[in-house]
Amino acid sequence: MTDSAWSLHPQLARDTAPLGDLPLSRVLLMDDADYPWLILVPRRAGLRDIIDLDAAGQGELMAEIARASAALRHVTHCDKLNVAALGNVVAQLHIHVIARFRSDPRWPRPVWGPGPRRAYAPAELRHLGLRLGEALALHGDAPLSRPHDPA
Amino acid sequence: MTDSAWSLHPQLARDTAPLGDLPLSRVLLMDDADYPWLILVPRRAGLRDIIDLDAAGQGELMAEIARASAALRHVTHCDKLNVAALGNVVAQLHIHVIARFRSDPRWPRPVWGPGPRRAYAPAELRHLGLRLGEALALHGDAPLSRPHDPA
Repeated sequence: MTDSAWSLHPQLARDTAPLGDLPLSRVLLMDDADYPWLILVPRRAGLRDIIDLDAAGQGELMAEIARASAALRHVTHCDKLNVAALGNVVAQLHIHVIARFRSDPRWPRPVWGPGPRRAYAPAELRHLGLRLGEALALHGDAPLSRPHDPA
Repeated sequence: MTDSAWSLHPQLARDTAPLGDLPLSRVLLMDDADYPWLILVPRRAGLRDIIDLDAAGQGELMAEIARASAALRHVTHCDKLNVAALGNVVAQLHIHVIARFRSDPRWPRPVWGPGPRRAYAPAELRHLGLRLGEALALHGDAPLSRPHDPA
């Protein structure tokens, strides 16, 4: 259930395409074609750190992290998963779940860092988003596109 | 309980001081005086990603992440917590729980990156380790020193 006082942070909205909702979290696909990268955002207002959630919420979040991880591993056959709650810049609790490959541009370093980001082609974004949404068993009405894509 | 086939990865042992054990994880203090930084290492052999743990283990891990986070927040009054399971280099599941400050050297960037690390003075390491061990309610016989420190 979405907390009525909650809304997605504008920077997260700008950088991602929405895939749908799990019981606790909105699931976003980061628009970075170099890394299959999901972001989970618990739909409760005023959270910054994982421990701002109560114990039940923390358990639910871990289950959703596992679900996102399994979906990424299933769809991409990645070499490693990176999971992180950082949020030093965007002050709304969000968890990165990223598929990493020994062949990816930043391996073995973390993905965060300066440098331009390569956006998905619209068809590529739709294709990956659909496959991940299916693996996550999401039934959202997510558009799987960004606001600026042609319809 | 420690899985008898488990042993701490040598690189984790080299970079940290052991604080003691929680039910699932060994708790290490990273020897980096710029960031109060705990590392949790589940004592089960053969784990690389969080989803290599079963659901019960994942729940236990989340509870220990919360416990480490609360201890760091209590002891350091940090501005933000960073929690991450990366492990692209060290192939043994370990979770970073890091206290961040708006005044710290890498804020707001993540802490991982090239550059020299500033080790604690032995007394400083013992003091912080004792306070964190107390906040974590650990009763280990952890030496709170590194192998190369004078006794």
